[in-house]
Order: sequence, then C-alpha cells, then structure tokens
Amino acid sequence: MTGLAALKARVRAIAAQHMAQDSAHDLAHLDRVWTNAQRIGQSEGGCDPAVSLVACYLHDLVNLRKDSPDRAQASRAAAAKAAPHCAALGLGADQCAAVEHAIAAHSFSAGIAPETPEARALRDADRLDAIGAIGIARSFAVSGALARPLYDPQDPFARARTPDDARFALDHWPRKLLRLADGMTTETGRQMAAQRLSVMHGFLAALAGEIGADAPTQWMNADV
Amino acid sequence: MTGLAALKARVRAIAAQHMAQDSAHDLAHLDRVWTNAQRIGQSEGGCDPAVSLVACYLHDLVNLRKDSPDRAQASRAAAAKAAPHCAALGLGADQCAAVEHAIAAHSFSAGIAPETPEARALRDADRLDAIGAIGIARSFAVSGALARPLYDPQDPFARARTPDDARFALDHWPRKLLRLADGMTTETGRQMAAQRLSVMHGFLAALAGEIGADAPTQWMNADV
Repeated sequence: MTGLAALKARVRAIAAQHMAQDSAHDLAHLDRVWTNAQRIGQSEGGCDPAVSLVACYLHDLVNLRKDSPDRAQASRAAAAKAAPHCAALGLGADQCAAVEHAIAAHSFSAGIAPETPEARALRDADRLDAIGAIGIARSFAVSGALARPLYDPQDPFARARTPDDARFALDHWPRKLLRLADGMTTETGRQMAAQRLSVMHGFLAALAGEIGADAPTQWMNADV
Repeated sequence: MTGLAALKARVRAIAAQHMAQDSAHDLAHLDRVWTNAQRIGQSEGGCDPAVSLVACYLHDLVNLRKDSPDRAQASRAAAAKAAPHCAALGLGADQCAAVEHAIAAHSFSAGIAPETPEARALRDADRLDAIGAIGIARSFAVSGALARPLYDPQDPFARARTPDDARFALDHWPRKLLRLADGMTTETGRQMAAQRLSVMHGFLAALAGEIGADAPTQWMNADV
C-alpha cells in the first residue's frame, strides 16, 4: 500500500466514525468528492495530495440541517473538528492549516474565498457531486426521504409559478442544482460541471416527453 | 368540456379520495399511466377510451406493500373496489366488466392474462411508468424514503455479488426495472419501453463515469 493509500484508509475510518451520515452525505459521497478532487488536482496542478485527501474525507464532520441558523458556521466547525485528526494522521502544521482552510472554505454559505488549489478543488468537487447522474439520484433520494412529491402535477416545470423546493423535488433543480455550474472555481471543475449539466438537461427533456409536456427550455439556459 | 374530459375530472376525484397514496403511487402516477395508455390505445387501436380512462384512474385503489402476502390479490381487490364507481360514473355493464378485467389483469403477479386492448394498454402503461426518466426519479425517491443507500460503495454495479434491492437502490435496476421492457404486451409499449430503457442506460453510463467506474454493460444487455 502506498503512503497515500494508507492515509486514505486511515482518514476514511475517521470519517466513518465521526461524520453525521444521511442518505446524501455518507462515505460514498466522500469517495466521490475525492474522485472529483483528484481529477481537478491532476488537471489543474498545485495540490498537495495528502492535504486534498484529508480535506475531502473530513469536510462533512459537521453537517447541519439546511434550515439550521448555524448552517453558515458548519464548515468552520468542521474545520475545527478536523484539526486534531490532521495532526494525529501525521500531517505537518502547514498541511493541517491547509486542510482547515479547505474545509472552512468549501461551503459557499460560509463566505470564505478558497485561496489554495486544495480549497478550490474541494469546493468544486463537493458541488459537482450535487449535479449530473449522481446529482439526479441524490436529489430524488433526499426528496423521497422528505416525502415530497416528484413535481407539481398541475405545472411540473413551474412555467406559471415560482419554483418552491420545499414542496416539489424537481423545483430544487432551478432553485439550486442547475445553477451550481456557475460557481465553479477551477477550469476543470467548469468542464466537469458542463458535462454533468448536459446529463441533467437530457433527463429533463426525456421526462418532459414521458409526461406529455414540453421540455423546460427555460431551465436549460445559463440564466435559470 | 367534452364527455371524456368530464369523465376524467370525475374519476380523478374518485381516485384522489379513495386510493392509498405514497410518493410512487399518487395522482401524478395515474395521470402518467393515462398519458401512456392513450398513446398505446391511439397507436394500437381497439380501445374504448372511457373504459381505458376509468381503468387507468382506478387501477391502484388497493395497493399493498411489496412484502404483503396478499399482494398477488391486490389487483383483484382493486377491480372489485372499482366496480361500484364504474356504475356510478354511468358506464354500461359491458364497460364495467371491461374496466374490472383491465384492473385485475394489470399486475403481473396476479397471473391474469390481459385479454382486451384496454387491459393490455393498462398493463404496459403502468410498467412504462417504472422506467425511463420517470422510473429513475421514482426508484431513487422510493429508496430514499426507505433510507436505502444509492449503491454499494464497494461494488456499485454488483459485478462480484448478487444484486440485493433490499440493501441498495441501484440493485433494483437489474432485479426488476431493466427487465420490465421484456414484459410488454403491445408493440407500441415495446417501442416506448425501448426508448425509456435507453434513457436508463445513458444514466448508468454517466453515473459510472462520474464515480470512476466502468459502465455496467452486463446490466445493459437484454438478458440482465
């Protein structure tokens, strides 16, 4: 086992023990974020693999509900919670500081600009996991767990109303998911996001055909 | 309002009042089944629209859990429960009998061969709603409600294990969804199913690429 593979086994075990898991935030999510971050890091350059790896696996140690008033603080809290684990994993002080910055800055709502290659890779990698085929699966799984209907049967694509993602699963797409590609911080992330967005557009077109509706072209423009 | 539109409004109101609803079986499901059945009926010919309409909207009046020992009897029970509504809606005795047969025969597990155009249209229309883009959405919504993980992180596409859809959402695809196209009873249903299957294959290929796995070609053959 290489040094990075051994580090991955150890940090993955820490995540398994300490993260608050739900169907959209589990070890498989962390594995996918790391897969994405590796692609971004390899293409963009400048990432310390150990920092990027540990940041990916410990970024969700604190995961508050969307309606929590402390949600904007969750990524800072996760960074603080990750710090002792970084040291225990044998990372140096500079590496630990880089991990903490990447975790604190990964959430858009924290309002912290990602200032390092590892922080940009994590930010983009995490957002990429909300779109594409995996984003489709996660969005319907989450809405199913909340017992939300798939869409408004009167107006599936919200042509004559404001999308309300507290009521309908599909309304989360124009409210958030279809906009995520705009917030990528790396060129590789932008390319991966564009590809995933096209998967979602294809899904919307297929769904529209199946339910006898026109495709929601108003959701497929850049300015949804 | 035409006669059929008026009948639809009335039978839809009966369904809203009397069906046992969950996220995968709701009025939107009935609307989609009717959309599918109309396409099949118009293409295949021979359907009495009133019979087909009423059968579509009343076919899920009894919907038992998948693990219920009485599940094979559910469609017969739904047919019996539909009978008085048919008469109250003004359908003739022959039409009511045709509605009851279509409902009783719509479920594969009932073991009743669909012997009329309306019964074949309903059988295919209902199965079509489990595949394609809408099938993708429904399958992940149902598994999310059951708190099942999306896939096995060790072996997402079950290359080295038997698929177990009680454990993983994606395992329901080879166990059931990807096989549904084989059971269509009309040529129009087969064509619609083939198109929806290609949507699911595209989704699987995209998902595999996103999670860094090979596409599950073993699931995309006719003999999954």
